[in-house]
Amino acid sequence: MSGIVKKESFKTERLVIIGLGLIGGSLACALQKARAEGRVSITTIVGCNRSLEGLKSAQKNGLIDEFNTNAAEAVKDADIVILGVPVLSIRPTLELIRDHLKPGAIVSDVGSVKQPVVDDMRELLSDANVHCVPAHPIAGSEQSGVTAAQVDLFNNRKVILAPINGSSPESIEQIDLMWRATGAELFQMDVSEHDRVLAATSHLPHLLAFSLVDTLANQDQGWDVFKYAAGGFRDFSRIAASDPQMWHDIFLSNRDAVVEALDLFSSDLAKLRQNLLDEDGESMIEVFKRAKAARDHFAQQFQKTGSDVE
Amino acid sequence: MSGIVKKESFKTERLVIIGLGLIGGSLACALQKARAEGRVSITTIVGCNRSLEGLKSAQKNGLIDEFNTNAAEAVKDADIVILGVPVLSIRPTLELIRDHLKPGAIVSDVGSVKQPVVDDMRELLSDANVHCVPAHPIAGSEQSGVTAAQVDLFNNRKVILAPINGSSPESIEQIDLMWRATGAELFQMDVSEHDRVLAATSHLPHLLAFSLVDTLANQDQGWDVFKYAAGGFRDFSRIAASDPQMWHDIFLSNRDAVVEALDLFSSDLAKLRQNLLDEDGESMIEVFKRAKAARDHFAQQFQKTGSDVE
Repeated sequence: MSGIVKKESFKTERLVIIGLGLIGGSLACALQKARAEGRVSITTIVGCNRSLEGLKSAQKNGLIDEFNTNAAEAVKDADIVILGVPVLSIRPTLELIRDHLKPGAIVSDVGSVKQPVVDDMRELLSDANVHCVPAHPIAGSEQSGVTAAQVDLFNNRKVILAPINGSSPESIEQIDLMWRATGAELFQMDVSEHDRVLAATSHLPHLLAFSLVDTLANQDQGWDVFKYAAGGFRDFSRIAASDPQMWHDIFLSNRDAVVEALDLFSSDLAKLRQNLLDEDGESMIEVFKRAKAARDHFAQQFQKTGSDVE
Repeated sequence: MSGIVKKESFKTERLVIIGLGLIGGSLACALQKARAEGRVSITTIVGCNRSLEGLKSAQKNGLIDEFNTNAAEAVKDADIVILGVPVLSIRPTLELIRDHLKPGAIVSDVGSVKQPVVDDMRELLSDANVHCVPAHPIAGSEQSGVTAAQVDLFNNRKVILAPINGSSPESIEQIDLMWRATGAELFQMDVSEHDRVLAATSHLPHLLAFSLVDTLANQDQGWDVFKYAAGGFRDFSRIAASDPQMWHDIFLSNRDAVVEALDLFSSDLAKLRQNLLDEDGESMIEVFKRAKAARDHFAQQFQKTGSDVE
């Protein structure tokens, strides 16, 4: 886990983004801006999606220079390939493109879970004479799709690189420089630590928010229960509006770490429930005070880095 | 449960707010503004707190006209007394003031739980020749104290009135008009329904947020776990920074409804955990889709009413 400081600027010829959703689209947008400002040199930014509609609008809006709906064709002359697809689509995408990659190309991704991506890249690309640099930009929103793309989505956000043994330093530096051009702060992190930490601070909260909102909505009064809900509930539940398919993929890909975090949470919650039943206010207030202190600390740190959406 | 539409403006002579925290202070502030704009007629707004410091600064900032640290003295000539104290302090405050209230005075509160307040008012004030109008402004923030007071805290927020049998229509109308002057939307609601709905949409989320943040902070890496947390976690956990004492009071006062909501949540969460263990992605995605639809509906409704903090 260490910050990386680099001075050079990002240069490449053909950059292909497969899966032009919120993350891929925002990356394309931020790189176009960096290019317009002369901060990076990219000859061509190519978008690849199964749906033609999103690609056409992305090109019209200046996010991409070219597009292709066929991943195998799209990667043919690519120097860098970024997989912007949901986590469970990474493996089938690698299978599609593995025989069509240019020797020496760099393959990276944006998946929120890293172990299965690292495993798949190791297994499927070991003979492909390419460089793999798994990555995770810790940024996003409950919005999804290329139409939700934001030029500053990664500004002051953290991007974690999880290089595979044998990834060349040059390929790591390239991906590092690319993300740095979007305004992101770069870190390297152990793969299993990444997946455990993200299970706790991102995946579990999403699971709880989805679950609570569904529980409430299924009560007798239905959606009317939300009529008297206020800003606390709004913020708590915002992530329950996130993309169901994407989160389905994340939970299944990081199952063990998510269940472990969930069980720890449930065990502490059961104690708090017992405190409440016992009217043990002192123990309850201890929990609330510790939580408030930790959350106040987090808010301070967070404000400093300026991140504001995930 | 019904909206109330009134045309008259709020008029009173001596309004006393006991417990000048975020809610009491914001009420004073909003009423001062309404008075300055000629929308209400109040001769004197009095603040009452145990701490002299907050009262002095509130007076200096124009929130209150007078102050008194003694509740029994403060209420002596009051036409309206608003209890802004935490829920469990309402009963001892009623005991302090009951023998000093002016005949015909109106006593109201701002507590987030209504059944115990209704019970206490019924029991302690039945011989006092006053009018009781329990109330709950569904507004607030994770900030607390009079220094966090906001003039527009109640603007477009909902205020629930839970009148006691025998509360005079005039007293209900007075409290209704007072809150309306702050920009709030007024409703009447059955007391037990109020406590059940708020348990689900406000109290339970606060309990979960406190509990999760404490669980995470107590792991091996301590507060470092939050280093890679992003905007989703920030919003989900905002309410964990709320006032521990205030929430201690709310949970203990609404214990049964909170435990009931918690058990329903935990039971559904256990099913989702089993789906995850079984890799039953289809059931998971059904939950996520239903939750997203409900949350999207809520966000739309919420945006319309303009509320933004609780």
